[in-house]
Amino acid sequence: MNEFALIDRFVKCFDVPPAPFGPGDDCAVLPRQGPSCITTDAVVEGVHFTRATFSFADVGHKALAVNLSDLAAMGARPTWFTVALGIPPEVTVHELERVAKSMSALARVHGATLIGGNVTWAQQLSITVTMSGALEGKPLLRSSAKPGDAIFVSGPVGDAAGGLRALEEGTRVPALLKAQRRPSPHLAFAALARRFVHAAIDVSDGLAQDLAHVCEASQVGAALDSASIPLSDALLEFAPDDALELALRGGEDYVLLVTAPPRHRAALLALGAFEIGTITGARGLTLDGQLLTGRLGFQHR
Amino acid sequence: MNEFALIDRFVKCFDVPPAPFGPGDDCAVLPRQGPSCITTDAVVEGVHFTRATFSFADVGHKALAVNLSDLAAMGARPTWFTVALGIPPEVTVHELERVAKSMSALARVHGATLIGGNVTWAQQLSITVTMSGALEGKPLLRSSAKPGDAIFVSGPVGDAAGGLRALEEGTRVPALLKAQRRPSPHLAFAALARRFVHAAIDVSDGLAQDLAHVCEASQVGAALDSASIPLSDALLEFAPDDALELALRGGEDYVLLVTAPPRHRAALLALGAFEIGTITGARGLTLDGQLLTGRLGFQHR
Repeated sequence: MNEFALIDRFVKCFDVPPAPFGPGDDCAVLPRQGPSCITTDAVVEGVHFTRATFSFADVGHKALAVNLSDLAAMGARPTWFTVALGIPPEVTVHELERVAKSMSALARVHGATLIGGNVTWAQQLSITVTMSGALEGKPLLRSSAKPGDAIFVSGPVGDAAGGLRALEEGTRVPALLKAQRRPSPHLAFAALARRFVHAAIDVSDGLAQDLAHVCEASQVGAALDSASIPLSDALLEFAPDDALELALRGGEDYVLLVTAPPRHRAALLALGAFEIGTITGARGLTLDGQLLTGRLGFQHR
Repeated sequence: MNEFALIDRFVKCFDVPPAPFGPGDDCAVLPRQGPSCITTDAVVEGVHFTRATFSFADVGHKALAVNLSDLAAMGARPTWFTVALGIPPEVTVHELERVAKSMSALARVHGATLIGGNVTWAQQLSITVTMSGALEGKPLLRSSAKPGDAIFVSGPVGDAAGGLRALEEGTRVPALLKAQRRPSPHLAFAALARRFVHAAIDVSDGLAQDLAHVCEASQVGAALDSASIPLSDALLEFAPDDALELALRGGEDYVLLVTAPPRHRAALLALGAFEIGTITGARGLTLDGQLLTGRLGFQHR
């Protein structure tokens, strides 16, 4: 199957606008747009997933989800995206259609439209997505945390890292595997929480690392309370000895970490967030009063 | 060197806006924009180049040039771009900086600003660029060719395919190697020619294939005159037996193919274009009256 036929089959799985507003010309044409956000993220075979442990549908879902999560972290509403595929020759058209259908389903839920992309042969299967979102109001930045802010996360942390360990061990823990393979970007939380929030980031590199990014950008510090960090029952059962460690230094949770003035605590808790600590004027990141040191986060090999 | 340090060194080679308008937050923030064009294209080691025959500076240049060429083909003025890098572990920071500096120099010339991107480890070096351009006036589409239009190309064709052959043979033909490694996107031509033009495409898959794309999208045919197809002296000397074949079915020239009413012939010739044929009402692509058949264009292996 040649490149043009492949593109055709892939694109047919999506609701795309007619060319030149969608795929089919040298570029996609966009109408006038208000303020927006742009993000790019890739998933690569052997780095972010293996074909032994992820289905093609999982890969497609995750490639789109990680970009949606970046938009959530800015308080933006998804609008359009492009997909650049790297395809090993042995991957079949049916397998690619499973990637496409899974991306298409997630895109539809969040109102994101495929407008273009690229296909190339490659040794590793890879999906690189560039996505845009509309900003209605101010963006939620990493650099806006203020001393005295309470720190919240929008869901349990550590499950995706637990899921990665379960995959490596060959253990079947559905809740953790789902967190690793099919993360749910917290766009609904972001849309509702945005008016209460000072700073925001999505937890992709690990809670400690991403909080450190916020602290660095905002020139503040943070004090975490270990007992408040939300850990799922599945994680506590799977990794009773180091669930907290997985939560702090594991990655890929794709929940949101936000900081907000304490007067908005009730609103954020009502939205399902968990309060886990406080932003401090003194630099450095502490857990129960002890300075966190060493490698803070997770990096893909 | 970890991911964050790598990103930092890469980004430092560019003139980037401060976060959140450039790299540094979960997304880049863009102000309100007029109508625009979006394109995505990738160059992958072993598919589009090898490290034996391309320098790191060549790779960076070409990755950006192919996207700039897509904007030229729509008549858009480059504005911003993102870069997603796939990096094999043995590539050094200095080598990455050579990629970055070469991209940066080309971006500056054309007024394009790096606003974000992504870095991941990979087996093959790859650069995936997503680029946006501002549309001032109507986009130049593939679907707007009219029977009776004259067909023009903005420069000689076949040199890049000749360059690829020269690389494979280990022959040193500087003009052809330059066409293959350092294509010059024809943005200046597009900016001046756009008001005379009906349809446009950039010649990336080969003259015959790309003209076929225009004919299909416009529901027309085309008659080419072989003697009018511009071939460089370097190509004629290097491949005296099949220079025309390389021009027709080779790829990666990144010149523009445009169609225009014959009354604009003088204007287009004054801009340096070459007239090579006529758009016809009858479907099909002919060369000197003979139907072109078989594989029309070039596909990367």
